[in-house]
Amino acid sequence: MNSDLLFITVMYIDKFIRKTAVDIEPCVHGGRIVRELRKSGVKPLDFSANCNPFGPPDKEKLKLVINKTLKNIDWYPDNEYIDLRTAAARFSGVELENIIPSNGSSELIRLIMQTILDNGDMVILPQPTFGEYELSIRLSGAVPEYIKYEAVYRDSGTITDDMLNRSKLVIICNPNNPTGTFISKTDLEILAKRCQECETFLVIDEAFIELCDPSSSMSTYVNNNPFLILIRSLTKIFTIPGIRIGYGIAHREIASKMNNLRIPWNVGSVPAAVGTWLMDTHYKNPAFLEQSRELINIERDWLIKNLGLIRGFDPVPSSTNFILINIHDFGMDSVMITRCMQQLGILIRDCSSFRRLDQDYIRVAVRSHKENQQLIDTFSKSMELWGKYLAKKSIHEALQRGKTFSNTDCEYYPCHFEGQDCTFCFCPFYPCEDERTKGEMITRSTGDQIWSCMDCDLLHRPDVAKAVLEELINCEGNIRDLKKIWKKVVEPLL
Amino acid sequence: MNSDLLFITVMYIDKFIRKTAVDIEPCVHGGRIVRELRKSGVKPLDFSANCNPFGPPDKEKLKLVINKTLKNIDWYPDNEYIDLRTAAARFSGVELENIIPSNGSSELIRLIMQTILDNGDMVILPQPTFGEYELSIRLSGAVPEYIKYEAVYRDSGTITDDMLNRSKLVIICNPNNPTGTFISKTDLEILAKRCQECETFLVIDEAFIELCDPSSSMSTYVNNNPFLILIRSLTKIFTIPGIRIGYGIAHREIASKMNNLRIPWNVGSVPAAVGTWLMDTHYKNPAFLEQSRELINIERDWLIKNLGLIRGFDPVPSSTNFILINIHDFGMDSVMITRCMQQLGILIRDCSSFRRLDQDYIRVAVRSHKENQQLIDTFSKSMELWGKYLAKKSIHEALQRGKTFSNTDCEYYPCHFEGQDCTFCFCPFYPCEDERTKGEMITRSTGDQIWSCMDCDLLHRPDVAKAVLEELINCEGNIRDLKKIWKKVVEPLL
Repeated sequence: MNSDLLFITVMYIDKFIRKTAVDIEPCVHGGRIVRELRKSGVKPLDFSANCNPFGPPDKEKLKLVINKTLKNIDWYPDNEYIDLRTAAARFSGVELENIIPSNGSSELIRLIMQTILDNGDMVILPQPTFGEYELSIRLSGAVPEYIKYEAVYRDSGTITDDMLNRSKLVIICNPNNPTGTFISKTDLEILAKRCQECETFLVIDEAFIELCDPSSSMSTYVNNNPFLILIRSLTKIFTIPGIRIGYGIAHREIASKMNNLRIPWNVGSVPAAVGTWLMDTHYKNPAFLEQSRELINIERDWLIKNLGLIRGFDPVPSSTNFILINIHDFGMDSVMITRCMQQLGILIRDCSSFRRLDQDYIRVAVRSHKENQQLIDTFSKSMELWGKYLAKKSIHEALQRGKTFSNTDCEYYPCHFEGQDCTFCFCPFYPCEDERTKGEMITRSTGDQIWSCMDCDLLHRPDVAKAVLEELINCEGNIRDLKKIWKKVVEPLL
Repeated sequence: MNSDLLFITVMYIDKFIRKTAVDIEPCVHGGRIVRELRKSGVKPLDFSANCNPFGPPDKEKLKLVINKTLKNIDWYPDNEYIDLRTAAARFSGVELENIIPSNGSSELIRLIMQTILDNGDMVILPQPTFGEYELSIRLSGAVPEYIKYEAVYRDSGTITDDMLNRSKLVIICNPNNPTGTFISKTDLEILAKRCQECETFLVIDEAFIELCDPSSSMSTYVNNNPFLILIRSLTKIFTIPGIRIGYGIAHREIASKMNNLRIPWNVGSVPAAVGTWLMDTHYKNPAFLEQSRELINIERDWLIKNLGLIRGFDPVPSSTNFILINIHDFGMDSVMITRCMQQLGILIRDCSSFRRLDQDYIRVAVRSHKENQQLIDTFSKSMELWGKYLAKKSIHEALQRGKTFSNTDCEYYPCHFEGQDCTFCFCPFYPCEDERTKGEMITRSTGDQIWSCMDCDLLHRPDVAKAVLEELINCEGNIRDLKKIWKKVVEPLL
């Protein structure tokens, strides 16, 4: 089908699609390890998915649990999921009747919105946050009213009674993805009470709470507050994204409604058995989760400190197992640095798909110490790669321009000396690693080494710039000839 | 919570629920083997779920496939599901871009309705059929217009252009659950063309088509007809209800919309790997499915013939692996016979939850020959159990009445002789197995033996009835005393 015809078909078909579904684009997510592996054949180190770095616990036992399930794979799962819900209830300090089992927490988000929201309802949605909320809200025909997440984080009173009265639902991710910030239980208790008074649902996504502070869960309040709904996921805390398993916690009447509406066998026998086993085991012996939290705290602090040492990186304080980093002053934007890191074998989360974050933020997971060290090293390497890329780009632009020039409009002019040439904003020979240029190998605060040419002004001298450009034009920009040009033009000056 | 308070809470909460969700009750389904096992501790023989009786194929290889997946259970599944969709496309003779992967076919039904239907849209829904369609239609805010399934089955022209023009969607299950009837490809081709002309979606659920006639699938038409959507399921054909895996087939633009709207990782790594393996394997070597169809045909014909021999059973002709039986003239209704069979260790499907079927129908799956024989035998046993139950009931009613009587208003009066007593419509001593009563053990047409008391009129003699009733009153209806009463009252008369 040619592209014009395709466009016509798309436009034509849109006429027949549910109105709220026409413009919905799928959310962007991290954890694209399988796709990367397919593309490059090399398994990357995944800092883009934010799972417990110390899971999954007891893989051998997990295998046994699954293999036991396979014996009866020709049976339909019990679609009341009594075992799974009993385990979840005990794990969360509630009753079986409060639990809604789900195929990962994404399904639960859809189910909540589908159970509650009518066309035109308003939903208070702090931003930035997990993208699936907005998709589900819009799909249900409701309208999100954005507020700043920091506002809720610093003072939950930012959500006024007037706003609550106008809204059908408020959704808060706690700790928040992607910021890692955590709203205190006291603040949420106040907000939950106000929501109940205003007859507005408060949905709290506690997907990461077990990796942060499980004692702050709001689970015990659901029985006295039918307007409170909690989202839980086993994906993150037990590092089992391949097994889709989550659950909701709500007042028994709301839970009953949602259990009526969910698809009949939304959880397969394998995830049901795995979920039951994991929650039973770790309810009886919480050591794994306790140790995970301890190690995450240590590693997160180390990582925040060391990320902060990278020039242009400003990590946001986090209470959980991932860190949002403001890279506005870094040089590369989030798209570029993500691509660059990917080429170096590390997946990070480009946060440009989150509202309000533009291309100024990336998110990294907290992993083991060795891996975190590797992350820091690779960020340094990415800067070198970036330097080389800019050098190439500089050559390309110089060739296109075809003449030397001084960029006096540049906010950094003059970066070396008044009257300098700006044809090669980035040196085409970077990193030459020749100390006669006055450049030097420096040890960065993170411990790794990088070539600094802060004190070299060779390529900014108008005569040198002109000579290098002429040679580049002669060889038609063939960068394999750079060594020859260096020898001919730069070497004699050293 | 006391029941009044609970009722008030329910009513109160309903005010805040999505309008289309308030009255939705979950569908009733078969396959409750796990629940039965929990209740009774005994594994029943399941004729209520309608899966391929010869699956799952190669359980050992299945285990290997799953165990291989477990190695990377800490990775998110590729949420484009390239491998799974490629396998499904090949298996169904379409392209990767036509495939929408889903967590069983129930999720797909919801997704289709959620993608297409707006509040107030009309949907043509032949009845009786699979209950999940109606639930999804109502949840989406659309309105089902019921038509008789037989009408479509006999002449798809029953759906007039006027109806199509008024409707957004028509959904047809082919072969149909629970009737087992099959609409020919020619008829569906005509209907699909008419739907396209009227710009009305035609959704065909082909969950059972591989167990019936895969050459009749409409899959090859999707690329030229954006109004045609097919539902496929691996649950039924490979007998893996524990692994939730299905997929949709649609025009690439519709498929793309639906892939945008489905939850990001709706299929876990295990079902994705199992689905890929099964479809790859059975595309390359279709022997298992071919043999399944052959065996199902043979067993279905045997079962229909033998079910037809049971007095009061009228099996509906079927083209697939389950049989709907009209039991209107049987004596027990569908609820009673289902309970009775359950007590005898066999699950059958009470069809009273299907529209138009009331308590007049049950559905049984076609299983292996030995199991089918067991089903027939157990139906006979259930009749005996039923006789005993009626005898007990007869005693209870007689005691309540406290005196003998002739029921001349009964449509069967006189079943034995004019002036007979009707206190014990069913003999409290059934089955006495004493040939002196003129009762006899007869061999039924199905081959099994049953005690017939057609020629015994003892308990209808007014003096005998009176004496038995008096004795029953004396022992306060203790049925353990029946033997004594027999000896005292009946024995002397033989």
